[in-house]
Amino acid sequence: MEENSYSKGLEGVIADESRICKIDGIKGRLYYRGYSIEDLAAHCSYEEVAFLLLYEKLPTQSELDDFSVRMRSSRDIVPQIREMMRTFPPAAHPMELLQSVISYLSGYVQHRIQHSAACNCRNTLHQVSQLASVVATYGRFMQGGDYVPPRADLSHGANFLYMLHGKEPDSLEGEIMDKCLLLHAEHDFNASTFAARVVASTLSTCYCSISSAVGALYGSLHGGANQRVLEMADEIGDKNNVAAWMENALAQKRKVMGMGHREYKAKDPRANIIQRFLERLSEKKNDFRYYEILQEVERLFRAKMETAGKPLYPNVDFYSGAVYRLLGIPAILFTPVFAVGRVAGWLAHILEQRSDNRIYRPESLYKGPQPRDIIPIEKRS
Amino acid sequence: MEENSYSKGLEGVIADESRICKIDGIKGRLYYRGYSIEDLAAHCSYEEVAFLLLYEKLPTQSELDDFSVRMRSSRDIVPQIREMMRTFPPAAHPMELLQSVISYLSGYVQHRIQHSAACNCRNTLHQVSQLASVVATYGRFMQGGDYVPPRADLSHGANFLYMLHGKEPDSLEGEIMDKCLLLHAEHDFNASTFAARVVASTLSTCYCSISSAVGALYGSLHGGANQRVLEMADEIGDKNNVAAWMENALAQKRKVMGMGHREYKAKDPRANIIQRFLERLSEKKNDFRYYEILQEVERLFRAKMETAGKPLYPNVDFYSGAVYRLLGIPAILFTPVFAVGRVAGWLAHILEQRSDNRIYRPESLYKGPQPRDIIPIEKRS
Repeated sequence: MEENSYSKGLEGVIADESRICKIDGIKGRLYYRGYSIEDLAAHCSYEEVAFLLLYEKLPTQSELDDFSVRMRSSRDIVPQIREMMRTFPPAAHPMELLQSVISYLSGYVQHRIQHSAACNCRNTLHQVSQLASVVATYGRFMQGGDYVPPRADLSHGANFLYMLHGKEPDSLEGEIMDKCLLLHAEHDFNASTFAARVVASTLSTCYCSISSAVGALYGSLHGGANQRVLEMADEIGDKNNVAAWMENALAQKRKVMGMGHREYKAKDPRANIIQRFLERLSEKKNDFRYYEILQEVERLFRAKMETAGKPLYPNVDFYSGAVYRLLGIPAILFTPVFAVGRVAGWLAHILEQRSDNRIYRPESLYKGPQPRDIIPIEKRS
Repeated sequence: MEENSYSKGLEGVIADESRICKIDGIKGRLYYRGYSIEDLAAHCSYEEVAFLLLYEKLPTQSELDDFSVRMRSSRDIVPQIREMMRTFPPAAHPMELLQSVISYLSGYVQHRIQHSAACNCRNTLHQVSQLASVVATYGRFMQGGDYVPPRADLSHGANFLYMLHGKEPDSLEGEIMDKCLLLHAEHDFNASTFAARVVASTLSTCYCSISSAVGALYGSLHGGANQRVLEMADEIGDKNNVAAWMENALAQKRKVMGMGHREYKAKDPRANIIQRFLERLSEKKNDFRYYEILQEVERLFRAKMETAGKPLYPNVDFYSGAVYRLLGIPAILFTPVFAVGRVAGWLAHILEQRSDNRIYRPESLYKGPQPRDIIPIEKRS
């Protein structure tokens, strides 16, 4: 590159090496530690994938049993945090609560965290586990319910729904919730993960780093698109309205939500999987409204874009909001649920960053005023 | 650069343009918006400099009056936040509290923040003002005191000491505190400011972005060095011990704290100014112990490093801890006090980032396993 040239948003700039995630955007493939997302979704639980991300290998049965015990025994929320959540100003967004709670949580860990690679966060799994409990409990409180203590016999996803709704989900719902968290667990150097690594590079704690990542995920350019897809589907209302709605939207140059991704030039592989979850849930509940509307939006939009020579495909957010709706999750929790899944990836990146660390301290290209003298305040204008 | 080459920690990589801060590391000069740090420290208050950072110009008297009214009327802490601070687990660090409180604070702003450049944070100055109150009050509670409501007739620095100690500082102490905050208000794309920009680039809120910056500043590679300088000075104990201590430290390859800075190849200009503050405070209190020890450490260490052909100079942290000690600030608050000063710079960078934004999404260089098949769990080892 020429001197003083730079790439805005660091697009295309390599920030570090990583051994966690590979995205093949051309072919639409995604791998965690070398395993395809399709295989992981078909064969593994969220806990198994969290183990993979944190330990660089899939667990043996006894490793997984031990890991599950650790994660499940970290689910309960201490009364002080529950109180903090109850008194959180209702005008605030749960992502603000979540960012706040995570830093606060660190005060309640038995073994204190360290400013070093030797912290015990991977052993306690406290953060990975607590995020799900906090988000579920926030949803519970929001609906006027009482705290539901966790159950250690349920998967990570099923327990999330249990703590949210106060009743055990059926096996299909529990499984789909668990797999949705798995599908969101990792996605290379996106903005929230990069924020976590920048903070970790100062040798700050895992709690502070994850809290910062939550702050980034709250941004409207990062999380939250699935909520807007669902609002779009609600606006359309019925599959027979899609064609007219689409004509109108394109004429008004409105954005069709949940389409396109900086990394993928094909359909996001996670979208294919979530689309099948939506189909199965729709069958189970005999409610095909969202499924039919979204399938039709995808079909018409892709055809139009291909005709225009600007192909655009569904991303992970396109079908997930409808799945969450059918699982009874309020729309305001969609971005927090993203964080519940992604936290395993964040922690893996934090540990990787520390294992071969250099503090992030890029340069700016100065375009401001040249050195100048201060004018006395009475002579300023 | 060659394909797949990269710079660790993004050292030397331009991340974006900026018009806020210029560092001339060779000459040891620092400018905010074109004004030298020496001129600003000599002629301006913290509020004046915060105005400069946020509005790109020094204020007229009426602009400054208006700005001061806004900042000072945002000083009081709502009872809910005070309660949260009182019940914060005592084992946690105040930087964790600070990160947590900032996200929480956003629930108590009258005008809600927006996911856009049109947020009202620059108008309310709520965050800039509250950070000082929260840190002072934390220190007050730590010492068993009650909440001290702010006073609107005091400067930002003097009010900080007032809320911390419960009594009005004398004019020299108030002035030096105010100038120390000013000297820490901005320093280009350091790790915490970069973290704030990364989070802001998702169009997250100012609160979430500043909370993330606090998380980064907590890292031991970023904040906290002034506390370790003071521990070193306490260990040395007397200026006559410096030579022997230094021989020993260098023989043991111990790091002399507060020396050297990635950006400066000369003495940090802020260190010169803070050194003079320390001299004035030492005179006033007739206590020259720290001043003499630190001057002697600087003199001997610089001579040794110059002889060795590896010149190293004091940075901003070298004299500041001793100043804070003489102002009665507990050492655990030194890094939080850094945040109290820096928040104006963080907010300026967040607003600048949003004014011409692209989400930060760098690449990783994948070094992990190639695509592989899942082995059934019973066959894994």
